[in-house]
Amino acid sequence: MREIERKFLVKNSRYKALAFEKKYTIQAYLNTHPERSVRIRIQEQKAWITVKGKSDEKGLSRFEWEQTIAVADAEKLLKICEPGKIEKYRYYVKFINQLFEVDEFLGENSGLVVAEAELENINQPLALPDWIGEEVTGNKAYYNASLMKLPYTNW
Amino acid sequence: MREIERKFLVKNSRYKALAFEKKYTIQAYLNTHPERSVRIRIQEQKAWITVKGKSDEKGLSRFEWEQTIAVADAEKLLKICEPGKIEKYRYYVKFINQLFEVDEFLGENSGLVVAEAELENINQPLALPDWIGEEVTGNKAYYNASLMKLPYTNW
Repeated sequence: MREIERKFLVKNSRYKALAFEKKYTIQAYLNTHPERSVRIRIQEQKAWITVKGKSDEKGLSRFEWEQTIAVADAEKLLKICEPGKIEKYRYYVKFINQLFEVDEFLGENSGLVVAEAELENINQPLALPDWIGEEVTGNKAYYNASLMKLPYTNW
Repeated sequence: MREIERKFLVKNSRYKALAFEKKYTIQAYLNTHPERSVRIRIQEQKAWITVKGKSDEKGLSRFEWEQTIAVADAEKLLKICEPGKIEKYRYYVKFINQLFEVDEFLGENSGLVVAEAELENINQPLALPDWIGEEVTGNKAYYNASLMKLPYTNW
């Protein structure tokens, strides 16, 4: 129920060849409040409702609750979400037993590629592949809820 | 997925003796936006997450999506909800095959008692028991999300 995550920019597209899976993902928000965001996500034949709480000071950990829901329900819920949707390809890459989820954003956020690594605890060491760039953990501009309101192509 | 509901004030406490069930209910909101409210409700050993969309002009029907969740999860979610909680006893009363759900509010809303009848369609005729008072369907002040922000004892 507590998500610990580090986030990085991505320097080149080498991650694409290394990915063992790639999934088209669409998501939008019922609420983008930083203390209680509510996200609807559809990834091909699966869908989820996800609630995230406030970030800690460093933006490293957050309360997270998630439950799967029917895709048909998620499609109806997407229609009443706040205006703006996030569309992206999510690539799954393993590097020395660590899963990196690489988001290649589409639409108004095209050009942006971000990699996330979920950790077991705050102090866990993390080995980085050479296509990983600058760390942006805790930078609110890269939150998906922020990208919906101020898309990357408008930066 | 479309909820059609009429709401009434309650004139006296006769409904209590007629109820076949009574359940302590606590609820709070992750979002109170009228176009996409998100409610967490715990009723004894059960809990739900409920999303409601915009009301029609008369306040009679609304998009509604609901899913059961674990009570332990609901307790954690309640902690990050918007400040303010609704506490009430909900009584279930049958009158000529129509279920009336009667909410006796507690805490900051004590003194308020409201009955709701869910209908199959907008034009369905509804027989009213004699303890039912003024209709308040569509009156936003009686929405639970409103009562949380402006409780009845402050009216």
